[in-house]
Amino acid sequence: MTGLLNNNFITQIGILVNDIDKVSQAYADFFGVAKPEAIITDTVDKAQTEYNGAASEARAKLAFFNMGSLQLELIEPDQHPSTWRDYLNEHGEGPHHIAFVIEGMKEKITLLESKGFPLQQKGEYTGGRYAYIDTFKELKVLIELLENDNK
Amino acid sequence: MTGLLNNNFITQIGILVNDIDKVSQAYADFFGVAKPEAIITDTVDKAQTEYNGAASEARAKLAFFNMGSLQLELIEPDQHPSTWRDYLNEHGEGPHHIAFVIEGMKEKITLLESKGFPLQQKGEYTGGRYAYIDTFKELKVLIELLENDNK
Repeated sequence: MTGLLNNNFITQIGILVNDIDKVSQAYADFFGVAKPEAIITDTVDKAQTEYNGAASEARAKLAFFNMGSLQLELIEPDQHPSTWRDYLNEHGEGPHHIAFVIEGMKEKITLLESKGFPLQQKGEYTGGRYAYIDTFKELKVLIELLENDNK
Repeated sequence: MTGLLNNNFITQIGILVNDIDKVSQAYADFFGVAKPEAIITDTVDKAQTEYNGAASEARAKLAFFNMGSLQLELIEPDQHPSTWRDYLNEHGEGPHHIAFVIEGMKEKITLLESKGFPLQQKGEYTGGRYAYIDTFKELKVLIELLENDNK
């Protein structure tokens, strides 16, 4: 495969919501599964969150459902500037991104930027890091890159 | 599993677009795959398309990309009334539904309606049938049911 990600396997779909507790319960009821405990992303000192090139205190509550070979991720952002908050304000609740596992985050971001797909937000999480790439104009959905240290 | 669908395996994500030719080319370039030939859904006499309880002449151009265990479907609707056209007009381009394979379409629609999830659109295709269920308020995305005759 000669694509930009070296991977076309969708590992996650992320959906923005205003009330993660309520929507998680609705998914649990609809699909007959346990309601997952929501987690909250790390504070900026640990997550090193950058949005549009500047550090951001933004955090989000996340809840995950296993739905085949991918996870469905619910995201309730706080009010600080982030791809989550701005997209939610602009588009309303609904799907925000599809995610792909990649290797070599720094080089991948450089490659994508050289092809006209700018980095929008990045950060660290325990065991890895993520980046949201602004592919909306071309692909009509954002792409998230995930790099895990333990492969 | 005791969920309403008896299945939680996402088989498809559908994305509404204004120009399927342009967006298909962008996906092909981004992921390093061949640009698929768009197909057009059947005419109403064959598809028996119903939207909000009434027959509709609506058709759409579709293009499919294999992305792991699911397909990503691009959808360019025509101007006739449909879930595709109305959602596109209201939300703009972007993800519209996630799809699940089910068995027993008629009974499933009846069950979902009894739980407060109304049928929005249904139709036939060669080898099966589909139904869009209005789960947006609860799940923040529409659910599509797919029933295939050859299992």
